[in-house]
Amino acid sequence: MNHTSPDRPLVLVTNDDCISAPGLHVLAGLAAEWADVVCVAPKRPQSGKSSALTVNDALRVNEEHPAGAVPGVKYYSVDNGTPVDCVKVALYSIVPRRPDFLFSGINHGSNSGTNVLYSGTMGAAIEGAVEGIPSAGFSLLHHSWEADFSLSLSFVSELMKRIRATPPAPGVCLNINIPARVVPRGVRTCRGCPGRWNEGYQAYTDPFGHEFLMLAGRFVNEAPDATDTDEYWLSQGYISVVPVTCDMTAREALPGTAAHFDF
Amino acid sequence: MNHTSPDRPLVLVTNDDCISAPGLHVLAGLAAEWADVVCVAPKRPQSGKSSALTVNDALRVNEEHPAGAVPGVKYYSVDNGTPVDCVKVALYSIVPRRPDFLFSGINHGSNSGTNVLYSGTMGAAIEGAVEGIPSAGFSLLHHSWEADFSLSLSFVSELMKRIRATPPAPGVCLNINIPARVVPRGVRTCRGCPGRWNEGYQAYTDPFGHEFLMLAGRFVNEAPDATDTDEYWLSQGYISVVPVTCDMTAREALPGTAAHFDF
Repeated sequence: MNHTSPDRPLVLVTNDDCISAPGLHVLAGLAAEWADVVCVAPKRPQSGKSSALTVNDALRVNEEHPAGAVPGVKYYSVDNGTPVDCVKVALYSIVPRRPDFLFSGINHGSNSGTNVLYSGTMGAAIEGAVEGIPSAGFSLLHHSWEADFSLSLSFVSELMKRIRATPPAPGVCLNINIPARVVPRGVRTCRGCPGRWNEGYQAYTDPFGHEFLMLAGRFVNEAPDATDTDEYWLSQGYISVVPVTCDMTAREALPGTAAHFDF
Repeated sequence: MNHTSPDRPLVLVTNDDCISAPGLHVLAGLAAEWADVVCVAPKRPQSGKSSALTVNDALRVNEEHPAGAVPGVKYYSVDNGTPVDCVKVALYSIVPRRPDFLFSGINHGSNSGTNVLYSGTMGAAIEGAVEGIPSAGFSLLHHSWEADFSLSLSFVSELMKRIRATPPAPGVCLNINIPARVVPRGVRTCRGCPGRWNEGYQAYTDPFGHEFLMLAGRFVNEAPDATDTDEYWLSQGYISVVPVTCDMTAREALPGTAAHFDF
């Protein structure tokens, strides 16, 4: 590869919505204003894939020319690739040098609160943090393919500038969620809202008389009165920024747990 | 379902290796000594699936009678189900009452250190913690289907007893790894070892002349001199217990991050 200049930062852009998602091009376009950009994204949508990675199976890389591609940006897809696969394949088999930043998204849909656990968008950003690359996932609270990203463009651009100036601490990436259909009132750093999905599954009968289930959950906010969560700030029209750790050890639980379990 | 007694604890057992994995029966057998047990596990192996869940696709549940089944234990598989799918389907569509405990494993292979991010075994345990159920994932450092679980049976049994007496704090589950081929020297609670996989991918050419990649990574321990990590204690012949949080907010990073990103 010789399309990039070592004098400019290199940005790896990925997502979980697939190589042709409009949100990917928005992020690539904003990064291309100040960096060389390589997009490596799943061939097909990979929502809800968390940090899943492909073991013991073949991965194929394709150069792509998706509709809406940003001029000067190289695009690659990974067949059957999860977001984490895309990051790993990009780092070890595609990019010409180590990326300076990794941006994932802009996701078509929320990744606030507990969703960070299931999000493929954030799986990619967390993988960037594991690799020591300053990383952030961006998500717009709107599922449609025709979602309007324009209202928050200047905010995303300013956030990129701030991430360049002050990257997240090692082992930490950013989970950035953007309210839909409004010009954001500002940006607030906060904790991820605790919660869970419930209401479970809806049962159907297939044409051959066999039952199948479809996920029909609804998010339950377990801190509805808190004013320091991403759910709260999003409800107030702000962009939320949650620092997310790739070290899942519950350090505050360590001493007490040790007392009970060591023998 | 009427095969369980409300007077006994109910334990949900799952894994990522699939419904017929020997490690699943080991865990179910030990739990059945003191509890009613329901196993809900993937139909096919789901290693590396993290907290991935199935959205917008059909899930089918099958009652199973796998070889090696523990007498009195009910078994169900979920077609194409990830470990998180199995937990959700179990809770919302299978079990007769809320489980008192969730145990995942015993995995055929390590889930120490950074592997917790990618592990389907731990994805299931984390999902249990999200649901407020005391949960633990168990993994033996041996990939073979014929792995010998017998050397650590009394330890796993004692750990279950201690989990019953003192469940993990809300939002916390346990990542328990067991050394292979030795009688463990004991149990040590500790932090997960920081690290990452590198060395990337090996390239092949398929019979039609197209290139494909296979993951060929090797774990790089980023704290090789630390004596407070799971990698360290496992290397010393101990079982490691890491408390794992399902809240990924990097709280120590919050104040500094807020200063840079709020506007």
